[in-house]
Amino acid sequence: DSERQRMFMEAMAYLSLYYREQEGFAGFIPRMARIHDEIMQTGTYWQGEKELAHGARVAWRNNSRCIGRLHWNSLAVRDMRHVQTAEEIYEALVEHIRVATNGGKIRSTISIFAPQVPGEPGIRIWNPQLIRYAGYRQPNGLLIGDPTQEELSEVARQLGWKGGPGTPFDVLPLIIQMPHQQPMLFELPHDVILEVPLTHPEYAWFEDLGLKWHALPVISNMRLEVGGVSYTAAPFNGWYMGTEIGARNLGDVERYNLLPIIAEKMGLKTRLDRELWKDRALVELNVAVLSSFTQHGVTIIDHHTAARQFIHHQRNEEEAGRVLPADWSWIVPPMSGSVTPVFHVPYKDCTLAPNFFPQQDPWK
Amino acid sequence: DSERQRMFMEAMAYLSLYYREQEGFAGFIPRMARIHDEIMQTGTYWQGEKELAHGARVAWRNNSRCIGRLHWNSLAVRDMRHVQTAEEIYEALVEHIRVATNGGKIRSTISIFAPQVPGEPGIRIWNPQLIRYAGYRQPNGLLIGDPTQEELSEVARQLGWKGGPGTPFDVLPLIIQMPHQQPMLFELPHDVILEVPLTHPEYAWFEDLGLKWHALPVISNMRLEVGGVSYTAAPFNGWYMGTEIGARNLGDVERYNLLPIIAEKMGLKTRLDRELWKDRALVELNVAVLSSFTQHGVTIIDHHTAARQFIHHQRNEEEAGRVLPADWSWIVPPMSGSVTPVFHVPYKDCTLAPNFFPQQDPWK
Ligand code: HEM
Ligand code: HEM
Repeated sequence: DSERQRMFMEAMAYLSLYYREQEGFAGFIPRMARIHDEIMQTGTYWQGEKELAHGARVAWRNNSRCIGRLHWNSLAVRDMRHVQTAEEIYEALVEHIRVATNGGKIRSTISIFAPQVPGEPGIRIWNPQLIRYAGYRQPNGLLIGDPTQEELSEVARQLGWKGGPGTPFDVLPLIIQMPHQQPMLFELPHDVILEVPLTHPEYAWFEDLGLKWHALPVISNMRLEVGGVSYTAAPFNGWYMGTEIGARNLGDVERYNLLPIIAEKMGLKTRLDRELWKDRALVELNVAVLSSFTQHGVTIIDHHTAARQFIHHQRNEEEAGRVLPADWSWIVPPMSGSVTPVFHVPYKDCTLAPNFFPQQDPWK
Repeated sequence: DSERQRMFMEAMAYLSLYYREQEGFAGFIPRMARIHDEIMQTGTYWQGEKELAHGARVAWRNNSRCIGRLHWNSLAVRDMRHVQTAEEIYEALVEHIRVATNGGKIRSTISIFAPQVPGEPGIRIWNPQLIRYAGYRQPNGLLIGDPTQEELSEVARQLGWKGGPGTPFDVLPLIIQMPHQQPMLFELPHDVILEVPLTHPEYAWFEDLGLKWHALPVISNMRLEVGGVSYTAAPFNGWYMGTEIGARNLGDVERYNLLPIIAEKMGLKTRLDRELWKDRALVELNVAVLSSFTQHGVTIIDHHTAARQFIHHQRNEEEAGRVLPADWSWIVPPMSGSVTPVFHVPYKDCTLAPNFFPQQDPWK
């Protein structure tokens, strides 16, 4: 039928890339013949470990929004397709956090769980990232924690979560759902989550704000597609670029919204926008993030270095004769845009496979 | 023929907008009948003063790249279509600068010269802006002034310009070309060009850098198209948004590249990108620009206020039932992007007429 047809076409497109880049063309034809038979019999096919690993790396290379792609070929791939239960997935995720955190020397890592059976629901991790802070709406209307996690925090409660201690930085439990089953809740062990308390190299008062952030960003709600096969649970991490924490997570008005308080502590008047108090506070918050991570031996990259690495990646891809799909509005950092070299490049975008794709939140 | 056909269709599209927005539908049919006759006889048509003025305002309103569009309806339109010679154009441009500068209280103004005759070259002002600083390549390879003006400075020399005194801020002569004629050079009178010396509210040494910038940004190389008619010389100005000077003109590596020297004077170490010395210097340079302009009574807007005004404009346009074409990468300011509300809006872009369009540099 046409589903199998499509699967075979996608398999062919990816396998030809895989053989071209990794194996040379010799094995391609017999492999495609086997895949063809398998798809005709089962509607899908089982990828070899090396096929899958390269597919995950190329998915990263192809993702238009990621500025960190220079390192695409060094992604550590954990083949977890044999794992059968939510409990085992939970254990594998804890292990992912442990090996990827690596005491602060962060390793780019992906854990790939069993693929979606065509026409059936796939395994889902409900959390957008493995480590995220809860957001609690107070009776007085104010919000404690991360406003973007308010909904998931509420969903977790309805699934039986008792809630955390009520700080602005309570780590959410994991919610894992196997196909055709109810979602299950799991608390992450505290000792596996590396966090960095934020201090500022010049402002002693900064420490008293009691801010911190977790070391490891593991995106856990995207679908990895390789050769027509969908991995709906395939959490991956790199290391942070400083602005993700300092500009967006802690700075955005709709997130922790910390610029007004930092500006005030800096002694800036916050009445007139044209005195650029937001810009000044933004820079110092980002200085705090970068220096605190560095001080604690946790890998992080500043947006200038990341942008330069991306320009390097751009040259690599050009030399390899590949197009570089890039979404300018995501590649240019959210602060000091025109100071980074990527601002001045008119990137073209397109959607290549393999890739990572957003999925609908499962509770919606 | 098909040229006249196209002209008539464009005229109809614009005039129907003009009558809808300005006059009510009563006069539309007889006006279109007259335009039809005129196009059939001459290949083009002469727009009424009010038709032209509204067209210029709508061209501004339609330009996807401009963050200043809240004020579109208050554009002052100078109808200069009767002007016949390069000398008279020069005089009109000097007068434009004078009335638009208005002693510092800048008035958004456009001067519209005679339209292009279809199939013939149009009047051209070779300068990208009426006021721009020359760029001189030194024998030692270094560049004095504005690197983006190096080529035009050289072109001016070949047309007989003697060159300025050799400072980094020598105002370029105007180069005006009438259809089928040679381009002509005109020096702008010094007293008409308002400039702002840059100081910093806290750093006394800033003044000693000897920086300044001109008060008035008059874009002079774009084509205004209204109702199918092309005005190839129609220079327009608003007031500056601070980042245009502080982030781009003075900050870009390919422009005045001042961040390293400012950072050094601020006592910052400039060895490590992750200490964000560029970001800190960028903010202070922009503080200097905004405060110096304000101090000298010259209209300027900071990027926070401009972004807020644009959100206001967005609401206005929605209420008016119009689409808002916007190019996100131009609307989001080049510094502190995510701190401004426009960063968080996924703008859609499209090209509406009337509009301003880029033109090829005439010497190329
Ligand atoms: C190695 C260090 C890495 C850095 C510094 C980095 C940096 C970034 C940044 C700054 C973003 C934008 C995030 C945002 O604004 O929300 C991003 C997005 C993204 N990155 Fe990376 N990244 C890294 C590793 C990885 C890895 C290992 C993968 C996958 C294997 C990956 C895949 C993606 C994807 C799919 C997105 C888009 C997310 C979305 O659409 O919401 N990145 N990256
Ligand atoms: C009133 C104050 C104004 C402000 C604050 C403003 C602000 C801006 C800014 C920041 C840009 C981007 C410039 C760049 O990055 O190179 C821009 C572009 C533009 N603006 Fe405005 N503007 C104003 C008035 C006007 C007026 C009066 C017009 C025309 C009647 C206009 C038409 C345009 C056009 C056509 C562009 C795009 C230029 C290009 O494509 O290179 N603006 N504006």
